[in-house]
Amino acid sequence: MAKRYGQLCPVAKSLEVVGERWTLLIVRDLLRGPARFQDLRAQLSGVPPRLLSSRLKDMESAGLVSRELYSEHPPRASYTLTGRGRELGVVVGALATWGRPFVARRGGPVHTTCGRRLELVHYCPHCDDRVDPSTVRVPVAVGGAASPAIRRRRTMRGRQPRARGA
Amino acid sequence: MAKRYGQLCPVAKSLEVVGERWTLLIVRDLLRGPARFQDLRAQLSGVPPRLLSSRLKDMESAGLVSRELYSEHPPRASYTLTGRGRELGVVVGALATWGRPFVARRGGPVHTTCGRRLELVHYCPHCDDRVDPSTVRVPVAVGGAASPAIRRRRTMRGRQPRARGA
Repeated sequence: MAKRYGQLCPVAKSLEVVGERWTLLIVRDLLRGPARFQDLRAQLSGVPPRLLSSRLKDMESAGLVSRELYSEHPPRASYTLTGRGRELGVVVGALATWGRPFVARRGGPVHTTCGRRLELVHYCPHCDDRVDPSTVRVPVAVGGAASPAIRRRRTMRGRQPRARGA
Repeated sequence: MAKRYGQLCPVAKSLEVVGERWTLLIVRDLLRGPARFQDLRAQLSGVPPRLLSSRLKDMESAGLVSRELYSEHPPRASYTLTGRGRELGVVVGALATWGRPFVARRGGPVHTTCGRRLELVHYCPHCDDRVDPSTVRVPVAVGGAASPAIRRRRTMRGRQPRARGA
């Protein structure tokens, strides 16, 4: 399990569970279906077997994958994402979308129905519409020394990012 | 900069840029507006100053933040997300959504227009509609030893995840 951040913030909490090197790539591969340890090891070329084993144990403890023995002697297991693990598809999709420019035309999530590239958008069930990114706010983290500094800064400078660096 | 994964995959490429500890929390905080080094240090309670400085330099090199001196003597800088950095809002939003259960009612992205919680959904511009998660496919990684193993597995077991672990 990754080191803690000590913040009562959903982003920090998520990263404590999935922020370690390799974890989200294991999720990416399991989103395509169950896989045996050897399959994952081959796909994630470069991952040391003991590290892969440790990550899968952490993911099982965190309720992201379930493990099933398909051979007793020698012991061989296959791994399947749980419902909670499959919900990480949105995180993997967001990283795939953001990373498209690094791999030119190859990357990004695709709609299997029509074969076209997908966008990831924020949707408001109340307004029943896609929402403009400028109207999305991630609430302030709670805990640690964070809150007073953030509150001060928000009061001083307002909430919307300035476009200076764009 | 994080270690490489050696995969021509947009998810892996993204994680090479933003996968290091603290980086996405710095992005989260800068999504609310520009911040001085001291602000960030206070918000990210627990981050060693040299590590924060190193992360910000990496983020500047990667084109995620721009740095501006607001005092020459002593040198003091403030940091602003670039357009490319702000695009990471979707990744941070996905992590915030996934992490909601860890912080009960506090977390997750909110629609500033109506004050309600937002969902993050895949949208197909071609079909002009939200798409069902079961019709989202993240293309197979290219490079390393990955491709043959994944191709074999997909042929053997089909593309949809089984529900065994749900």
